[in-house]
Amino acid sequence: MTFLLRRSVTVGARAISAPHSQLNFHRSGYATLSTASPYFNNESSGPSVTTSIPGPVSKKAIDELDSVFDTRSLNMICDYEKSVGNYIADLDGNMLLDVYSQIASIPVGYNNPHLHATASSPESINFIINRPALGNFPPGNWASILKSGILSVAPKGLNQVFTGMAGSDAIETSYKAAFMYRRRIERGEGVDFTSQEIESAMKNQSPGSPDLAIMSFKKAFHGRLFGSLSTTRSKPIHKLDIPAFDWPQASFPVLKYPLEDNVEANKEEEQRCLAEVEDIIKTWRCPIAAVVIEPIQSEGGDNHASPVFFQGLRDITKRHGVLFIVDEVQTGVGATGKFWAHEHWGLDSPPDMVTFSKKAQTAGYYFGNSLLRPNMPYRQFNTWMGDPVRAILFRGIIEEIQRLDLVKNTAETGAHLYSGLKELASRYPDKIQNLRGKDRGTFIAWDTPGRDAFLKKMKTVGVNIGGSGESAVRLRPMLVFQKHHANMLLERIEQAYKA
Amino acid sequence: MTFLLRRSVTVGARAISAPHSQLNFHRSGYATLSTASPYFNNESSGPSVTTSIPGPVSKKAIDELDSVFDTRSLNMICDYEKSVGNYIADLDGNMLLDVYSQIASIPVGYNNPHLHATASSPESINFIINRPALGNFPPGNWASILKSGILSVAPKGLNQVFTGMAGSDAIETSYKAAFMYRRRIERGEGVDFTSQEIESAMKNQSPGSPDLAIMSFKKAFHGRLFGSLSTTRSKPIHKLDIPAFDWPQASFPVLKYPLEDNVEANKEEEQRCLAEVEDIIKTWRCPIAAVVIEPIQSEGGDNHASPVFFQGLRDITKRHGVLFIVDEVQTGVGATGKFWAHEHWGLDSPPDMVTFSKKAQTAGYYFGNSLLRPNMPYRQFNTWMGDPVRAILFRGIIEEIQRLDLVKNTAETGAHLYSGLKELASRYPDKIQNLRGKDRGTFIAWDTPGRDAFLKKMKTVGVNIGGSGESAVRLRPMLVFQKHHANMLLERIEQAYKA
Repeated sequence: MTFLLRRSVTVGARAISAPHSQLNFHRSGYATLSTASPYFNNESSGPSVTTSIPGPVSKKAIDELDSVFDTRSLNMICDYEKSVGNYIADLDGNMLLDVYSQIASIPVGYNNPHLHATASSPESINFIINRPALGNFPPGNWASILKSGILSVAPKGLNQVFTGMAGSDAIETSYKAAFMYRRRIERGEGVDFTSQEIESAMKNQSPGSPDLAIMSFKKAFHGRLFGSLSTTRSKPIHKLDIPAFDWPQASFPVLKYPLEDNVEANKEEEQRCLAEVEDIIKTWRCPIAAVVIEPIQSEGGDNHASPVFFQGLRDITKRHGVLFIVDEVQTGVGATGKFWAHEHWGLDSPPDMVTFSKKAQTAGYYFGNSLLRPNMPYRQFNTWMGDPVRAILFRGIIEEIQRLDLVKNTAETGAHLYSGLKELASRYPDKIQNLRGKDRGTFIAWDTPGRDAFLKKMKTVGVNIGGSGESAVRLRPMLVFQKHHANMLLERIEQAYKA
Repeated sequence: MTFLLRRSVTVGARAISAPHSQLNFHRSGYATLSTASPYFNNESSGPSVTTSIPGPVSKKAIDELDSVFDTRSLNMICDYEKSVGNYIADLDGNMLLDVYSQIASIPVGYNNPHLHATASSPESINFIINRPALGNFPPGNWASILKSGILSVAPKGLNQVFTGMAGSDAIETSYKAAFMYRRRIERGEGVDFTSQEIESAMKNQSPGSPDLAIMSFKKAFHGRLFGSLSTTRSKPIHKLDIPAFDWPQASFPVLKYPLEDNVEANKEEEQRCLAEVEDIIKTWRCPIAAVVIEPIQSEGGDNHASPVFFQGLRDITKRHGVLFIVDEVQTGVGATGKFWAHEHWGLDSPPDMVTFSKKAQTAGYYFGNSLLRPNMPYRQFNTWMGDPVRAILFRGIIEEIQRLDLVKNTAETGAHLYSGLKELASRYPDKIQNLRGKDRGTFIAWDTPGRDAFLKKMKTVGVNIGGSGESAVRLRPMLVFQKHHANMLLERIEQAYKA
């Protein structure tokens, strides 16, 4: 292993100093036209692993942390000063290529200089120390921050936003908006709440607290607070012992791979699921206010469906007056090779709401229909309603994405990576199964037997990589992940499978 | 009004340059021994109002904001660069004494120099741009940040923390901990989940998603997401049209004021409420996992109860194996003249969990019983699990509180302010009713007829002040609110009532 790592450093170093369009050869046979310089001048030329992970320094730090903080889900304890670009450093001096990116949430590389400048700006510092209650006391430039940042990348057809703190509350506030909208339509415009509604709401009883539902899909993940968890169906451990709303789940298509060999079966599967959705809308014991879905089910195992399926879903929800919420918390902000994953679908009319978080480094939901702004103030409200520091950071992220054309980079790097994996799968068919994510940027996954052991093994060859669902390896590199990184990743995957 | 404002500037300016212990006289007759210099050298010497509020510049900005953001709950659009200490600036050059403090969430003054240094530090900048997924990839110094910050002020008996983003998710994760704890005890240590539990949880059905409840109190406010909102009972507008869990509410004591004239009646009222709590625990259709309560009901109208009541609640919950969650989101971090409001109660055994947010500028819940750490990893987990930038800021806030002895300042200023208000109430008995918050720092409130008009009127005399419940004026100044500010406030209150 030591030999391997040393050699790769050399390969990496060569790639960094290479002029544009130089052909790089890799031992494992991956040859690519390197069309761009690395984005980070000071990025490592390759992984470097010199201790076990965790090493002695990390072990000591983990022990200390455990006395005050649950460390049983700890993956790696990190040095964020030394991490650069696509590389994450630990406390023992190891440097790993990071294709997990803080659970898919680092957008443009560790210690990105433009984000450093953004975060160090007087405006940013000011909002850290003078945090406004945005709904009551917004800063004078809040409209400008929204328009030049969050709203400048709003999905087509959606021009307003409700800002929040993290994925779960983006989702939950979108559900609240859906319920208030539903009752507004049912009640009729301008009709007041009845005294019965007012009194029963204070007792958590219908009709004031109505029996309405959100429909989600099997294996979905939408967050872990009470409303969002009621729509999450990823794993029992996420849900056990927590009271939940009696809301319905529909089947998410279980596609067969490779897609090109299973066209008819997959089409039938998707039609079956759509029929189930419609059936539930018609027969569920209470009205369904909204259907929520991820463009690619992420925590649930990287499960895909075709644009036709999502078009069908949009049609059905529209036909039945049910809102259509697209949860782009994990898929949004470029990772699938488009800014929003739902752009891949070619919808005739936009989703009613689109949630975001993770790579945006702030959260919320977009909407376009002005009736989704509740009919009275203080119905959708909380003290902070987001964090302007993080809103400014998202603006900096957007600037960096545009400056480096990173969505395009991700589409191209993803295509390159996908073909490399396809080639690898042809040589290791027992190891790389159900490869998925073609034409979805770097949002790529496959199933592998002994997945957890594989993820651990990857650390020893210098790669921080994550899983999803029961058996999937999920790739979630940052938007600054380039072809030379992809080559290094392919090489390390093969190394791990060979071992 | 112009005259009044100009004169006050002079008074304030004198106070700033005054040596320690100089006696300051105020026109309205409030005389105090000024025992300390102002904390901010560059703080305004008094309010200054030169336009209507909102003035022309603000109006224009509000119109612009409204096209993308709901402005119907907007109170004032602010200039956070010009705001200093206890004074908030708007876009029209008005400068108001702020005793509302971003809905009780600004701790140590606008543009506090120590917080500026904290937020500008390389460590802080680093955590803005390299945001870790704390549960998986904590930074090497996370234990140290927790111990020297959040945990250094942990309530007595509680030595662990689960970190979050804002009040609602602090509350909801504490409820999740309570439910998992309850089932752990019921199930027995080391007993696995049954297959029936695992299967039913994925369908949101019992026994996997158990029918368990959290009990809260009438008029309580604990947040606005689905679980927290099910325990919030402040106002119908907070709850209408949102599905809720069928959880119980007990009566919160409705005390009569002045307390010294209503000792027996209030004692009876508290006993009645305690009996109701016990009755609900015994007879509710499902087990109660936890009782949650605010030390002073804030949004619900600044409703107080005596230490005896809270001691009784602790006893009852203990006797019935029900967890006792104290929601210190609004009362915590010094405002009541102790760091945590529940320190006023002299409990024999600590609460099981204490939630915090607002003035901490970060959020979470403290706990001590290690069985409240769920029996397996990933049961209490999310991507970010808080924000280390805000955790560092809270450490800076704690340092500033200690350096300036601000909890003591708040206790003393509060006592001074309370007596001033009592004196004012004796002269304006129709205006200042049910004055409450004696010995609770600056956490003071009273009822006033035509409350909303009074709040608006206060802006014209240079004070930003908030309300709670139906008719309460609630004071929520920062911890840097001093006696000379209190005098100015008293003067302005009288001015507004006189007008």
